[in-house]
This record gives sequence, C-alpha cells and structure tokens, in this order.
Amino acid sequence: MAKKFPFAGRILMIGYGSVGRCTMPLLEKHFDMPLNRITVVDGDDHSADIARFTQKGVNYLIQPIKPDNLEATLLKYVGKGDLIINLSVEVSSFDIMQWCQKNGTLYIDTCIEPWANYYDNKDIPEEERTNYFLRHKLLEARKSWPKDGPSALATHGANPGLVSHFVKQALLEIAKFTGKPVSAPTDREGWAKLMQSLGVKVIHVAEHDLQVTNVPKRPGEFCNTWSIHGFVGEGAQPAELGWGTHEKRLPADAAEHKVGCKAGIYLRQPGCTTEVRSWTPQGGPMISYLITHGESISTADYYTVYENGKAVYRPTVHYAYHPCDDAVLSVREFQARAFELQPKIRLLNEEIVEGIDELGVLLMGDFGAYWYGSQLSIDEARELLGPDYNATSIQIASPVLAGAMWLIENPNRGVVEPEEIDFTYILDICRPYLGPVVGVRSDWTPLQDRNKLFPEANLDTSDPWQFENFRIRR
Amino acid sequence: MAKKFPFAGRILMIGYGSVGRCTMPLLEKHFDMPLNRITVVDGDDHSADIARFTQKGVNYLIQPIKPDNLEATLLKYVGKGDLIINLSVEVSSFDIMQWCQKNGTLYIDTCIEPWANYYDNKDIPEEERTNYFLRHKLLEARKSWPKDGPSALATHGANPGLVSHFVKQALLEIAKFTGKPVSAPTDREGWAKLMQSLGVKVIHVAEHDLQVTNVPKRPGEFCNTWSIHGFVGEGAQPAELGWGTHEKRLPADAAEHKVGCKAGIYLRQPGCTTEVRSWTPQGGPMISYLITHGESISTADYYTVYENGKAVYRPTVHYAYHPCDDAVLSVREFQARAFELQPKIRLLNEEIVEGIDELGVLLMGDFGAYWYGSQLSIDEARELLGPDYNATSIQIASPVLAGAMWLIENPNRGVVEPEEIDFTYILDICRPYLGPVVGVRSDWTPLQDRNKLFPEANLDTSDPWQFENFRIRR
Ligand SMILES: NC(=O)c1ccc[n+]([C@@H]2O[C@H](COP(=O)([O-])OP(=O)(O)OC[C@H]3O[C@@H](n4cnc5c(N)ncnc54)[C@H](O)[C@@H]3O)[C@@H](O)[C@H]2O)c1
Ligand SMILES: NC(=O)c1ccc[n+]([C@@H]2O[C@H](COP(=O)([O-])OP(=O)(O)OC[C@H]3O[C@@H](n4cnc5c(N)ncnc54)[C@H](O)[C@@H]3O)[C@@H](O)[C@H]2O)c1
Repeated sequence: MAKKFPFAGRILMIGYGSVGRCTMPLLEKHFDMPLNRITVVDGDDHSADIARFTQKGVNYLIQPIKPDNLEATLLKYVGKGDLIINLSVEVSSFDIMQWCQKNGTLYIDTCIEPWANYYDNKDIPEEERTNYFLRHKLLEARKSWPKDGPSALATHGANPGLVSHFVKQALLEIAKFTGKPVSAPTDREGWAKLMQSLGVKVIHVAEHDLQVTNVPKRPGEFCNTWSIHGFVGEGAQPAELGWGTHEKRLPADAAEHKVGCKAGIYLRQPGCTTEVRSWTPQGGPMISYLITHGESISTADYYTVYENGKAVYRPTVHYAYHPCDDAVLSVREFQARAFELQPKIRLLNEEIVEGIDELGVLLMGDFGAYWYGSQLSIDEARELLGPDYNATSIQIASPVLAGAMWLIENPNRGVVEPEEIDFTYILDICRPYLGPVVGVRSDWTPLQDRNKLFPEANLDTSDPWQFENFRIRR
Repeated sequence: MAKKFPFAGRILMIGYGSVGRCTMPLLEKHFDMPLNRITVVDGDDHSADIARFTQKGVNYLIQPIKPDNLEATLLKYVGKGDLIINLSVEVSSFDIMQWCQKNGTLYIDTCIEPWANYYDNKDIPEEERTNYFLRHKLLEARKSWPKDGPSALATHGANPGLVSHFVKQALLEIAKFTGKPVSAPTDREGWAKLMQSLGVKVIHVAEHDLQVTNVPKRPGEFCNTWSIHGFVGEGAQPAELGWGTHEKRLPADAAEHKVGCKAGIYLRQPGCTTEVRSWTPQGGPMISYLITHGESISTADYYTVYENGKAVYRPTVHYAYHPCDDAVLSVREFQARAFELQPKIRLLNEEIVEGIDELGVLLMGDFGAYWYGSQLSIDEARELLGPDYNATSIQIASPVLAGAMWLIENPNRGVVEPEEIDFTYILDICRPYLGPVVGVRSDWTPLQDRNKLFPEANLDTSDPWQFENFRIRR
C-alpha cells in the first residue's frame, strides 16, 4: 500500500448511508490524520454501525440538516482549509458549496442534491426537476465565484464521477486499436476533437449490477445495493440525456431546455419507467433504465465541438442502468404503487451470495462498441473491506477518496466537474478498489436480433446509433 | 374426503411435467382403479420423480411423441371408453382429439397445443400463431364431428379452465350485491345477457404469483412455478384479447381476424413484452403481462349478445399475469436475449419460502371491480400434496382432475369448452384444493393515481374501462 496521505485540516462528512459508511474505512486507511478530526453528521441514528469508528475517535452527531440549521452546523465543525464530504440525500449541495466558497472550505459530493421534496414534486416545473437545471444553476453561480476559490469537486462518486475518467481512458484505447494512437489532450477542446475524430456517436454509462441475494424481496419492500432514497429520487426525475448531433429526430415525448448549454434534453416521463437496450461484457445485452445522471449532461457538454459558436459535434450520452435483480423488482412494484415508496426499504449487504457490479462506459460509433470499466465482485469487495460492504459501495467510495485527495492537493481551483480534473490521478488511486478494470470491444448494436418475432416499428436500419433504436417500446 | 370415484377404463397421461406430476397424486387419491391401468408417456426421463407411482403399478414410458408415432402410441395404450390426459408441450392437441373422436376415447387437455416449432416460428403467418386460430381450427373440425361423440374437454386447467367457472360464480355474486339476484342461467344466451345486464365491460384473468424463493435466479436461467417451455411459448405468441363492444378504438398495433367468430384481436407483438395494469386483492395494483390464453377468446365469444346477427354486447377479456418474481426477471432476460430461451431452466418447488398464487377473475364495469378466485399458499399446497409441489401446480391439476371426472360422467358430449359444462360440478371438486376462495369488491380502476409525476398521453378519463387505459406505455 502507498504511504499515507497527510491532511492537516478537519473533515465533516454529511450522511453516513451506504456510501458514507464505505468511505470512512477508506479515509482511515489512506489519510494520515487522527480520527478525532473527523465529524460525521447524519439525520438518522447510525451509532451502532459507526461505533467501530467512534471508538477510534470519530465524532458522530445525529442531526438532520435543514436550511435553518445548515450554517450553524457547518460553522461548528469546519472552517478554512477543512473539507466537507457530502454523502447525504435531501441536503442541498448548492447551499453547502456556496457556504464553502465563502468560508474557504474544500467540498466534494456525489450528486447535485436539492433539499427534500424536490425530485417528485409536481409543483416544481418539469424542466427544473432535471439534473440539467441543477447543474445549470451551479454553473451560473460559479461565474460569480472566484476562479481560484476553494476547490469544490461536484458529483464525484462512481457515476457521476469515475465514469468520466473511464471515458477519457477509453478514448485513448480506441485511438490505439483504430491505429490512431495519440497522447492525452490537455484541454477540453482537444478531448472533444479527439472524440469527434474517432467517430463516437453514443456513450452509455452501462451498468449491470449482477449481485444476487438469498433473501428474496418481499412485497412492499424496496431493495437495492445503494441508497434506496437516492435511487427512487433520481428514478422519479425526468429521463435525461445528452443529445448528440447525429440524432435525426427529437423523440415525440422530449423537451428541450430554454436556458443553459443546451447539451441535453429530457423526456416527459420518469427515468424509472424509461427502458433502453444496452450491453456490458459479462452481463451481455440488457434491458436497462434510462435514469437521469449528472454525467449525461456534463459529458455531452464537455465533448461538444463548436465552429463559429455552433455545436457541430456532440455525442448522445446517458445512463443505462440494470440495477440488481431485487431492485428491478422493486422498481416495478414502485411503478405499480404510482411512485409511492414501499413501506420497507432494505440495503443489500450480507445477504448477497454472488455477482459483480459491472460498471463502465460503452462508447459506440464508427469503430463499433467499446466498454471500459470495473467488474468488481462481491467476493473481492468483502476481501477489501469486510463482510458488510458490497461491490457497489466500494465503486462509489473509492472515487470519493480519490476526489478528496485531489482537493487537498489542488485547493484553489474553485468549482470543478469530473471532466475538468486529471483523470490519471483519480484512476490510479481508484484502481486497487475496482477489481478487474477491462476494456472490451464488441460488435453489439441495438439493431442486433431485432424484428425477431414481429416486425418492429420505427427502427432506423440505416444508422444503428439513433436513440430510437435503443429505446424499448411497449 | 368424498368416496372414491370409480373408473373402469384405462388412462394415458401424456407429459409428466409440473402439471402431470401434480395430477398423478390427485388421480391416485380420488380414482377408484388399480394404478396399473394408468400409463404415462413423456419425452424426457422423469423416472426418478415418478418412481413413487411406478412402484405402485403406473406404467412409465420415455418416448417423445411425434406426428409419425402418435397413432401407434395411442393405439397401444388406449381405446374405446378410455381416457387421454394431455399435459405435454409440443404434442398436438388437435391431432390427438381427432384420433379420440375416431377411436371413442375421452380426452382432456389444458391448452390447444400445436406440434413443436410453432409459437415463435416466423414462417407461420402471425394470425395463425394465435390461440384464436388454434381454437378456430378446432371449432371448424367440431362441426363435422358428431355432437354426441366421445367427450373431449379442451383447455381445462386453471387458466384456461377453472377461471371460466369463476366468471360464472362471480356474475351471480355481482347480481347479488347489486340487488339483482338471479338463479344461474341455463344456456349461453342467458349467461351472455346476464353479463350484459350487469354492465360488465372488462374481464381480466388477474393472477399475481407471490411465491418467492431463497435461491436467486442466476444469469442465464429461466425460473418459473410451472412449465418454462409452456410459458415461453405462449409469451412469444402475439398478445391476444377478446375485444369488447364498449371499446372506442382499435389499438394502432392491433390486427383483426379474417376467419371465425371475430370475438378477439391480437397485437402485433409478443405477449411477454406487452404490459397492462391490473389488480388482485392481496397483491394490489400490479404491472402484468398480457399473455395470450384460450379463455380470452372463448369467454369473449361465449358472452357475446347478438341482435339480428350483429354482436351488440361483448366484454373485453384478457389474461393479466404477474408471474412469480423470479419469472419476471427471467422474462426480462428472455427479452434481452431476443426471445432465445436461457440455457438453464428451473422449476421452482422446494426453494419457495413463502407466498400465495393469487389467481382469479377481475370483472370490471358499472358496479366497479370484483375479483373472484383462489389464494392458495405454498404452505397449504405442501400440506395438501407434499414438499415438492407448489401452489400453482395444484391450482392447475385440480381442474384436470375435476374435468376428468366430468368426462367420465358425461361421456357423449363431443368437443366442449370450459364455458359449456356445469360450473358448479367443477368448482365443488376443485374447492378443497384452492385454499381461500374469495370474492372481493374494489374501487380500483386503471385511472387510479395516473398523471402522477408527468402528464400521461392517451388517457380516456371519460371511461376507465377503455383498453388503452390499462396498457403500460414506455
Ligand atoms: N455518484 C455516484 O456514483 C453515486 C452513487 C450512489 C449514491 N450517490 C449519491 O450519494 C448520496 C448518498 O448515497 P447513499 O447510497 O449513501 O445514500 P443513503 O440513503 O444510504 O444514505 C444517505 C444518508 O443521508 C442521511 N440524511 C438524509 N437526510 C439528511 C439530512 N437532512 N441531514 C443529514 N443527513 C441526512 C440519511 O439518514 C442517510 O444515512 C445520494 O445523494 C446519492 O444519490 C452517488
Ligand atoms: N390451463 C392451465 O392452467 C395451464 C397451466 C399451466 C400449463 N398449462 C399447459 O399444460 C401443459 C403442461 O404444462 P407443464 O407446466 O406441466 O409443462 P412442463 O414443461 O413442466 O411439462 C411438459 C412435459 O411434456 C413433455 N414433452 C415435451 N415434448 C414431448 C413430446 N414430444 N412427447 C411427450 N412428452 C413431451 C416434457 O418432457 C415435459 O415433461 C403445457 O401445454 C402448458 O401450456 C396449462
């Protein structure tokens, strides 16, 4: 193991759920600092679970953070040069970032989270319930914040987060196998032009969680390998995607945005009812959910090539998520319940008996399809951290660790997105926690094996990479 | 227990799969005959499983039945006054029935099964891959067979089969609670007019199999509580439904038939990708598959009211099936595999840890919704027949038993459908095997909790019972 990473400040971790509880052992292992400089605040009582760390000095506070106690709480535990790791749900990322900019505090989160009662609140206009809008609001604010302000790394878990670094690595690999090897571009324009020159049309964050358990999901129970509240929240948001320049027509149920970069669109239906075809190496072809994610917009935006102010190239980018089987069943029941969360929720850990979380990016275009990502198994996850952690949580927590290190080493970069930081730095730190990290070429396309039993309407056989070809219609 | 039922003939059971192996103990229990007058023929080797009966005299033959050995095999084991129970897949019900008509042999099956390579064979015209067509062919042949020929009871399992008797019972119950009590009609026209007068618009055979296991479905495995081949076969057929006279418009993807009674339509897509909203008392609202079934057509046909040769009343009728959770996952994987069956199949029995198979008919219309059916639990199923039987198989096998008894008591009725025989006779025999048999009123409609997160297109709020309201669009 590399030598420990020194940090002289204090850390405030907000949220000790599936990601927080997995980030803590990584901080202990990698950070050279007394644990009594770490405070954890969570709205729920996790004191039994966190006892192994409070025994070693970590402070634990049970306190739901609300708009009216946010400032007081932050002031009490962090200040200039300290670090906030926000791994909660229902606590506004934006408000904390704003506070951090004023108070000189470093900041990292894994999604741009709004306050409670947002994602599924029909009183909020549809277009504002999007990640596009939440990001837009942050980028607008950033314009008025100093460029060399305290660093804040937005949306840096596995996805969003790590996957943006996978995209860059994948581009270099594709360049290599198509006989156009290049060294890594050094700026946004360079990366965008590289992607354009390789003929990338579509990028899926293609995840197939193959972890299975021996405790069946019961009626009235929502099971998942990570936050149930987090998943249900994003699942109730509109399905969102970065919208590529190769797309011939806007879906009938799509809406465009009036503000911002215009790199993305949304569908006027929840992501958890929107199904698309995708592919991963182990899992094979899959039916996945098009759940909104920050990287769908930030990646599409980052890789846009402009000519005379006009976008001439952009990939279509979206999440294609096959959650673990028990979560698929939970989602279907959640739909049948008209999007009212089941009375019981269960985070899957000890009951998992086998499987990997296959999480990567599937780049598709002129070269065919290429998946690059992590195939961490439950067995390897348990070897790494113990019996009560699963593969998913480690895939999310290790980029949080790496992002925290990056912040400490780069404290004056203001607000940044994953695409804007050094991808090799992050990948190097994460790799030991990702199990096999593989790049796999495939001849899969969404047109494979179509029109099998009946003629299918709306197929565009002249271009496999049109969005409608991926979409599952019922 | 009632006294044993005497039978002087021989029995040939074709197929010893999930239904056959469950029918055998019922025959043993209820029939007063030496077991050495029963022969079982199956294409696969089930000799270990059937040993408990071959030890008691049952003859067991491993022999796939094909068109070229059908006659010879039948001739060897049965003749005039004997009984064939066809519980196989991929052996033509029609051809056996034809043989039975010629040879004076009684006959029962649980679906009108064609020879192998039919349901998913794109070389066969779509409209011929329907149950509508298979039934039509049988009804056409029946016209030329003597009305008082050897009785043949077509499609008499749970569904098709038992559910047609549930419909009649449900009609009498609805008449009662709406203050129009009647005695049971005595002919088809009477039943049809009763249904019309009660304002029934839609009938779902609404089944929610809530049995769960502690052995997870693995990738590449198709799990179900009854025939995997049977389910996959009907799932690959076009979605089919009896088409009610209240429906305002034909679905865009629907096709009408050119021949026959015209009581049904089909959708130009497989049933296993066609999803509809439905409801059962324990399970609540559900997302179910619109799988084709014989009763969808026969019920719609039976309850059609004609005036001057024109159909003036008919209910919409279809199956709304939520198979057990592991089967839902299997179906999704089967779709992702472009309808190529998974390499492994697993019939769920011992690994089931809890749950009921909630199987009934949901009648909807002017009176609201009324579900009538069986809620047999795995525990009760095991008490009835032992640890290696599940609730589903007993729900199917008991109507086979009852149908066999009916045939023996009514040997000269020619070919009949479930609607054409005495429903009380069958219900009385089956009831001890069905667990709680309940009738439950509900205010559920498919318009409940719609437009929840986003406005939904195509809702007809002026009439909840329009088919499009039930349909799940993605
Ligand atoms: N980028 C990624 O890869 C990624 C992956 C998974 C989760 N996430 C995000 O990370 C966050 C955490 O995920 P998780 O799986 O750990 O979620 P979780 O639900 O397991 O944990 C969230 C924690 O936040 C706490 N909390 C809720 N309201 C609070 C409040 N008002 N004040 C303080 N604490 C509060 C909860 O008690 C809970 O312990 C979510 O926002 C989720 O969307 C990102
Ligand atoms: N009406 C109902 O409620 C209902 C319910 C379930 C099943 N079914 C039907 O009943 C039938 C049996 O269902 P199951 O669950 O027992 O199916 P299964 O797959 O468990 O068993 C079918 C048996 O048929 C045998 N078989 C296949 N090809 C054969 C051949 N050429 N010759 C002889 N035997 C052959 C198989 O080896 C197997 O043992 C199917 O047609 C199914 O569609 C009806």
